[in-house]
Amino acid sequence: MSSTKDVLSVLSIDAKPYIYSFPLQHTALLVIDMQRDFLLAKGFGEIQGGNLEAVQASITPTRKLLEACRGAGMTIVHTREGHVPDLSDCPSSKLVRQAATPNNTQHNLIIGDKGELGRLLVRGEYGHDIIDELKPLPGEVVIDKPGKGSFWNTAILHKLKARAITHLIVSGVTTECCFATSIREANDRGFECCGIVEATSGYNDSNFKQCSLDMIHWSQGLFGFVANLQPLLDALTPLGIQSVTGSSTPPQTPPDFDGNLTISSLQKAFKNGLSPVTVIEALYNKIEAYHRVDPAVWIYLESRENALDAAKALTVKYSDRSALPPLFGVPFSVKDSIDITGLPTTTACPPLTHVPSASAVVYDKCLAEGALFIGKTNLDQLATGLTGCRSPYGIPHSVFHKDYISGGSSSGNAVSVGANLVSFSLATDTAGSGRVPPGFNGVVGYKPTRGTISFRGVTPACLSLDCIALTTHTISDARSLWQILEEYDPLDQYSKPVISFERHINSIGPQARAFKFGIPPQKALSLCSFPHRRKFNETVATLQKLGGVLTPIDWSPFQNAGKLLYDGTFVSERLASLPDDWLGKSRSLLHPVIVQLMDAVVERQSTAVQAYRDLQAKAIYTRQAEQVFSYSATGIDVLVVPTAPTHWKISEVLADPIKKNSHLGEFTHCGNVLDLCGVAVPAGTYPVKELSGNEADEGELPFSVTFLSGSRMDAEMLEIARRFEESMKENAC
Amino acid sequence: MSSTKDVLSVLSIDAKPYIYSFPLQHTALLVIDMQRDFLLAKGFGEIQGGNLEAVQASITPTRKLLEACRGAGMTIVHTREGHVPDLSDCPSSKLVRQAATPNNTQHNLIIGDKGELGRLLVRGEYGHDIIDELKPLPGEVVIDKPGKGSFWNTAILHKLKARAITHLIVSGVTTECCFATSIREANDRGFECCGIVEATSGYNDSNFKQCSLDMIHWSQGLFGFVANLQPLLDALTPLGIQSVTGSSTPPQTPPDFDGNLTISSLQKAFKNGLSPVTVIEALYNKIEAYHRVDPAVWIYLESRENALDAAKALTVKYSDRSALPPLFGVPFSVKDSIDITGLPTTTACPPLTHVPSASAVVYDKCLAEGALFIGKTNLDQLATGLTGCRSPYGIPHSVFHKDYISGGSSSGNAVSVGANLVSFSLATDTAGSGRVPPGFNGVVGYKPTRGTISFRGVTPACLSLDCIALTTHTISDARSLWQILEEYDPLDQYSKPVISFERHINSIGPQARAFKFGIPPQKALSLCSFPHRRKFNETVATLQKLGGVLTPIDWSPFQNAGKLLYDGTFVSERLASLPDDWLGKSRSLLHPVIVQLMDAVVERQSTAVQAYRDLQAKAIYTRQAEQVFSYSATGIDVLVVPTAPTHWKISEVLADPIKKNSHLGEFTHCGNVLDLCGVAVPAGTYPVKELSGNEADEGELPFSVTFLSGSRMDAEMLEIARRFEESMKENAC
Repeated sequence: MSSTKDVLSVLSIDAKPYIYSFPLQHTALLVIDMQRDFLLAKGFGEIQGGNLEAVQASITPTRKLLEACRGAGMTIVHTREGHVPDLSDCPSSKLVRQAATPNNTQHNLIIGDKGELGRLLVRGEYGHDIIDELKPLPGEVVIDKPGKGSFWNTAILHKLKARAITHLIVSGVTTECCFATSIREANDRGFECCGIVEATSGYNDSNFKQCSLDMIHWSQGLFGFVANLQPLLDALTPLGIQSVTGSSTPPQTPPDFDGNLTISSLQKAFKNGLSPVTVIEALYNKIEAYHRVDPAVWIYLESRENALDAAKALTVKYSDRSALPPLFGVPFSVKDSIDITGLPTTTACPPLTHVPSASAVVYDKCLAEGALFIGKTNLDQLATGLTGCRSPYGIPHSVFHKDYISGGSSSGNAVSVGANLVSFSLATDTAGSGRVPPGFNGVVGYKPTRGTISFRGVTPACLSLDCIALTTHTISDARSLWQILEEYDPLDQYSKPVISFERHINSIGPQARAFKFGIPPQKALSLCSFPHRRKFNETVATLQKLGGVLTPIDWSPFQNAGKLLYDGTFVSERLASLPDDWLGKSRSLLHPVIVQLMDAVVERQSTAVQAYRDLQAKAIYTRQAEQVFSYSATGIDVLVVPTAPTHWKISEVLADPIKKNSHLGEFTHCGNVLDLCGVAVPAGTYPVKELSGNEADEGELPFSVTFLSGSRMDAEMLEIARRFEESMKENAC
Repeated sequence: MSSTKDVLSVLSIDAKPYIYSFPLQHTALLVIDMQRDFLLAKGFGEIQGGNLEAVQASITPTRKLLEACRGAGMTIVHTREGHVPDLSDCPSSKLVRQAATPNNTQHNLIIGDKGELGRLLVRGEYGHDIIDELKPLPGEVVIDKPGKGSFWNTAILHKLKARAITHLIVSGVTTECCFATSIREANDRGFECCGIVEATSGYNDSNFKQCSLDMIHWSQGLFGFVANLQPLLDALTPLGIQSVTGSSTPPQTPPDFDGNLTISSLQKAFKNGLSPVTVIEALYNKIEAYHRVDPAVWIYLESRENALDAAKALTVKYSDRSALPPLFGVPFSVKDSIDITGLPTTTACPPLTHVPSASAVVYDKCLAEGALFIGKTNLDQLATGLTGCRSPYGIPHSVFHKDYISGGSSSGNAVSVGANLVSFSLATDTAGSGRVPPGFNGVVGYKPTRGTISFRGVTPACLSLDCIALTTHTISDARSLWQILEEYDPLDQYSKPVISFERHINSIGPQARAFKFGIPPQKALSLCSFPHRRKFNETVATLQKLGGVLTPIDWSPFQNAGKLLYDGTFVSERLASLPDDWLGKSRSLLHPVIVQLMDAVVERQSTAVQAYRDLQAKAIYTRQAEQVFSYSATGIDVLVVPTAPTHWKISEVLADPIKKNSHLGEFTHCGNVLDLCGVAVPAGTYPVKELSGNEADEGELPFSVTFLSGSRMDAEMLEIARRFEESMKENAC
């Protein structure tokens, strides 16, 4: 077994242009696109005319490489090129360029077409997956990429950084395409790359492979290094902790439990045959002993019997010790403001106690990865406090000294880790609850960037400031846990995407002119005057002629956000930019309608509590609107609305100034609340008499439509608006 | 001159693997890295041993290509590879790999070293700029890129999308490196690319160029197309609107003004010799005539004399008509809530009127690009209203009909464009003020995504919901204007970066271990107990030994944000998640300290206005904290603080529960307010007696430090924390 020293060591191998040195702990093996679609008969590659024999030559060397890297405990990253089933992440040029060749006979099936291995290069299909010989193990990173380069619209950079990777050993297919492109991208980002000659190959048996490799190391390392496989195997093999592939039987004598509860240590021990049952038995002895030291740690403790049953069930479920999920058998505790189905969530607050019917997302995730739940821990009431002295369930003390506080609000949480009763604990942090208690108990308290771990299913303190925090024995454990738990949760309105997907360009083919648009439902449009309704219907017809596909949408977030603007507390922000006594002093100098408005705002006496409720609602509607504009087949490119529902006469407004005003904003109010972009575009004119009903009225009035789209989608929105404008001009000619 | 039809037309040229077709309006010429450092003697390339003759061969063909594309009115994009002067955007591997070759004689100077053309590949240096033959014209896009690919950490994708580009004609140096890498990146993003054989070359005179080009079109267009220069010139030359290069003398007879005020039309007319003076004369006649139709458009009108003087000054300043700034001579109006130095900003509200000493950023930008200011337009008081009927300066009416409203709040703004008195107008939009008035006047109203144009220097309505809006005659003008005006403004706390820069990896060399950290000032640290101060000082020394550079920081945003959490309205959000009557009903069931706390929150009677002020302050502090962690030489990687200032006894907290609690959060409170990530790490222990002062006390207490970093910088922060943890363990051994 390798010592810590070995893992930290720097290895060196012969390479071009000179010796390649890499720190094992910071090096990942990147295995690019070793998919059935590229490597097997009847796959995408063969259908496109690729030389299968050439690419298959890399399979055996890549397998040797993968096994050696796994044995040395390196981070393994696999990529798969492919697209979501609706192909919404596939640029039109990629789809049609090659097959559009005049007299094409080579590209008879394209991406998304049905082949014998399933739909070509489509995620979830048989052909899209990695070949059996190189199948990823649980815990290895698999990156699904829409491009040839591994970095376009994927989380690979984030995932590599999250694992502190600085060096990449690169293999896979095809050398001239995805392999070389990924090395170039990685090099720009600062990774020190080494391509392995035998573990890469391409379809082109001419000089593409040689030339691609030569370019990497030319000029003493323009993009990086190139090495042969054997020197690398020679360097890695002595480090092999254990050849795991194929050895699904644990050793005859299961190892003893050494008491080390760090996740990394348990992972190794379980792989070597330690039973979770052994760990749980040892743990409960400790928990019972510690209860005599400090009876205030737990609000709920799972029974020894239940915990043992769960441990036994795990060993049955995961009989192959070479393929364990990353938290297999790892014991953990949970702050008692985090929901677990069927158990009371107390938040240390009897009047708030409830029994949830669903567990928090973060808890479910731990369980799904094999972790063993031990109990729910004490906390300052309502997760409010930094001392640990504010709970009806008693006052836990620091594991270091009985007179000193444990810190709060995650008091029992930190004690359960500090007293070595669990490997990790799930906490929360608003003002420091996930940092102060670990600080007072000699353990690690990690508060990840808010929104990177789902907060759904947790009793909030200050919802827009709350986050999940992780209490662990080491930084390495905190990092591993975060990597496992971080995930974008579209149902958590404060969740942040790991990466913001960029929309690609559709440059050629029929997709280049197609777009999807939504409109308000008939009920909302019925607020429009007759000519505005008529002109809006014409607009919809025009957009359809332009290639627009009218797509049903959920109108409620737009409607709700609009209401929030004037009916809620947001109008109070108008006063926030003015001195407190300004309205009183300026009253006589202001326009009477503005005075009336401002007075109404003041009269509402909106409270801060109401303001925060409005902001939480805004976050929900914003997230819902994001879904409407989502990057998928169901998401629309633009929402099209009448700019205003009608056009008032000046006299009408003077007679009823406030109502007539707010009616005008029916289709604009939501714009800034939801952080949309929008553009109002002339959409023809109509006779004044059509609006006034007075046949004697002469002249025309303008009709206008507004295109709305998601935040930062200006470019896409403006292009659709331009095409509409162009077609209006053509019709006018 | 080309007609609209021509500009929209699709051209086709002979290419490999087959005919390349491109829509002129959607095609950009990409000229890659034609910099002195790569092309001239004594530049970076020659110093690295590059074959200059080979790369210089591409200069003349690229110049021909550039002139033909300019003549056809195409979008031109230049790139320049290089780094900021402190090299903070240069990965360590790029800096040292090649020069680290054993017995290196080839790479004698590296990036940042002083050469005869200035510091090598450093922005702002003579050698970094584009060669004279290909010098960019005003309005052409110049992308400074830190990588070999054009898409890593640059705004090129955004800029191309903003211009509705789908096709790229690609040229520049070097073929095997930046040229080929950029085509691969562009292809993944959906652009249809065509490389021009003669307009690209590399240092390597072996088969790299041929092979790189062959890979592009292999397999019937793996990455795109390759064409020769001559067919492209043949296709473009007939479209040439005018050969502008070298013809700085306008035609003898200046053309008449045709009355078309669109920006695109004026740009062409000015290039052909039309004088801005002619336009202004014609315009003022119209403005005077329209004043008789509607006297409520302007709150301030620039005098004809002043406007003519400004027009004359412009013609003197820009005598070369082939190199005009994009808004040269374009007349515009400004909503009177936008500041202009020396003119009153009324916001149609006498008691708010003030004379600013600085102009709004967006106004200055228009002027800097050559636009001509005409006047300030009427609006609904306080920019509040959608009718246009709420101003003491009168009620403008729709340009279509005197009985019908103009819409508001940007009433005069939209009328000034609708009546064809200006080319564009700067407006604002909170609830629809930049969309409804254009809608009622038959013009375009564009509300870009909030934060893409600086709002600094504008009287706010709802500051966190306000944005600049653009009123124009066409979508194309709205788009051009947005491209010119959009800019990240670090002094506008609601401004959004065009792209979020990703930190690169430092994989090798001395930079791989170096980091910068900040700590609180002595005054803040003096709040700590003696052992916490002592241990914190030890921590700082440890970090310095690890390669950490202690860097001075501005502590105020962290301090201010911390205060905001408990002293402001944020605590009210705790009540926002509970039913209104909850506290009253649950009082007897709650922990007494929590009751005391909640009562205090209720007693404050915080208003919604106060909440919005706190949120505006939060935005300011967050922006200030972002600067502290900024991606530059002065920015720190982590902020290091004691997790808590001291460790209380349980008895001490029970005696003074609220003060003792909030003291503990001195260094944690700011964490979530500023959206930081943080991790508390054990940092040794100290004797209990050192804290208690009682020599009889036995045992040890834990000390903990917290590493804090900016939003989403978890990976970087955790790696520094891990290294600290590792060194603590080594010291303990």
